Amino acid sequence: MTASVHPLNPAPSLDPLVALTAPDMNAVNRVILARMQSEVPLIPELAGHLIAGGGKRMRPMLTCASAALCQYPGSRHHMLAAAVEFIHTATLLHDDVVDGSGTRRGKRTANLIWGNPASVLVGDFLFSRAFELMVEDGSLKVLKILSRASAVIAEGEVAQLTAQRQIGTSEDTYLSIIEAKTAALFAAACHIAPVVAEAGEEAEEALNAFGRNLGIAFQLVDDAIDYTSEAKTSGKDLGDDFREGKMTLPIILAYARGSADDRAFWKQAVAGERTGDDDLAHAISLFHATGAIADTLERARTYARRALDNLAPFPAGKAKAALTQAVEFAVARAY
Amino acid sequence: MTASVHPLNPAPSLDPLVALTAPDMNAVNRVILARMQSEVPLIPELAGHLIAGGGKRMRPMLTCASAALCQYPGSRHHMLAAAVEFIHTATLLHDDVVDGSGTRRGKRTANLIWGNPASVLVGDFLFSRAFELMVEDGSLKVLKILSRASAVIAEGEVAQLTAQRQIGTSEDTYLSIIEAKTAALFAAACHIAPVVAEAGEEAEEALNAFGRNLGIAFQLVDDAIDYTSEAKTSGKDLGDDFREGKMTLPIILAYARGSADDRAFWKQAVAGERTGDDDLAHAISLFHATGAIADTLERARTYARRALDNLAPFPAGKAKAALTQAVEFAVARAY
Repeated sequence: MTASVHPLNPAPSLDPLVALTAPDMNAVNRVILARMQSEVPLIPELAGHLIAGGGKRMRPMLTCASAALCQYPGSRHHMLAAAVEFIHTATLLHDDVVDGSGTRRGKRTANLIWGNPASVLVGDFLFSRAFELMVEDGSLKVLKILSRASAVIAEGEVAQLTAQRQIGTSEDTYLSIIEAKTAALFAAACHIAPVVAEAGEEAEEALNAFGRNLGIAFQLVDDAIDYTSEAKTSGKDLGDDFREGKMTLPIILAYARGSADDRAFWKQAVAGERTGDDDLAHAISLFHATGAIADTLERARTYARRALDNLAPFPAGKAKAALTQAVEFAVARAY
Repeated sequence: MTASVHPLNPAPSLDPLVALTAPDMNAVNRVILARMQSEVPLIPELAGHLIAGGGKRMRPMLTCASAALCQYPGSRHHMLAAAVEFIHTATLLHDDVVDGSGTRRGKRTANLIWGNPASVLVGDFLFSRAFELMVEDGSLKVLKILSRASAVIAEGEVAQLTAQRQIGTSEDTYLSIIEAKTAALFAAACHIAPVVAEAGEEAEEALNAFGRNLGIAFQLVDDAIDYTSEAKTSGKDLGDDFREGKMTLPIILAYARGSADDRAFWKQAVAGERTGDDDLAHAISLFHATGAIADTLERARTYARRALDNLAPFPAGKAKAALTQAVEFAVARAY
């Protein structure tokens, strides 16, 4: 697989994916709104803040597009796509508690508004509700895929916590963390569609791998975006990862390639001893000097190309074209 | 149903339940130890602290005793009892974060040792792992019971959070909270045994109700124990609920029955303006003056008697005798 096989579209868009899945996503959104309700008013209030808060709903869109790719004529994937989004929302609520985040998607986080206790508990509710939706659907195979993914996500989050402020974190460790904390749910979101479509083992393996590769590419780009000023519009604060001492690939590469002085700087920065704006500016200058951001994005493009290869078994058409552009969009966000 | 129908044993013990379930619980404990493992070392380290930390494993024992009551000859309940304990452990980890607790079962809490982020994430892991165990067993009915119970528990926890420091909380609201946050898992733990034993609808309904009534009695006694000095040995700090402004039944009754001065005191106490040792002593004196603790325990005995009635359909024998004493023990703890 080389770049010439998959020259990535220079100006891709999510629009084809959004258009392809719009009717399905209307149904998914109805399930989401109906099933986040509770007699305890704080639950829909807090959950609704995040769920209505401008997320792209990438994961349920992937479930719906994967179902279209498998020419699935039914509607079982609506409830399951909602379950996927509930699992994702639960992890976001808990992530913001874990990171002490104050901003997500350009809005104040739920934990800032309602406190950590409410965010932890409403996350637990959404997680449980996701399993109720899956049980209602009744596929043990889907339940197995998503319960496994949920455990892997939690393992990835704990591994990330363990690696935090650890300058010795390797690229392999980093990749295993993002494969767990991000790519596992992308993979599961895609994988469950051929299961309900009964599209066969080859389609299942292909879409599982597609989701995983796309998820890794997506997270690599996210981790690069954290250090690129254009990303201020993405709703995250510039350099959040830097101040939290998160060992993402840009730092791993810049540290590996740095001079003795650079390495001393990185050690201090990751230890939390250099968190000023001038420190962040110096970090970004080191990323440019070492090519760390550019190579993080190049790694992302490699995974994106693998994701595109994973689509090979499927027939050409609107679904394949939309998923292809979604992959290209995922790695084009940072330019 | 009157006290004369079920005169409660004055010196009951958990020993018969422990003896009855010992062989099963050895198998359950092996599942628990095997399935709390992870390649991420912090997970078994943190989970093991709580799991090995001297809990009675009441809920999995109830699953095993209920299976014995249904004369179930198989071993499916071992994995499911472990799943129940994982759900319970996950909720304890999250509860301690929510309450900011520093002590549980007489030991330092996991959040105090490893921090809130690790406790939140390891709780998520155990919760996911519980669902993996259930999926492995393969009963959609069990999955439905336990996913529903999990959602209800989270709703109960959020409702409790909402009621915190709210002097106007009614006894009905309090009962609905403890039914959700505590009794739902007791009920589910008992209910799944007749499901795997295929003991029929009547047995399912009876054990579901038995678990719910026992759970309510258990929590009522726990809430009384928080204010009785003998309970210092239980591993909780005396008056934790008082300082947290938790609206449990002793306060609800004492406030309802209090003089104008008493009510002013309770308003300040629940608002967090009276948290000293002398305030706690005054609160306890008001409990005695109003009979609030005694009547909380009388309410508990009523639910305990209902639980004993729920055992009527089952044949006499070791299992029924052990469960009967467990119920009596649950309400005798406070004397």
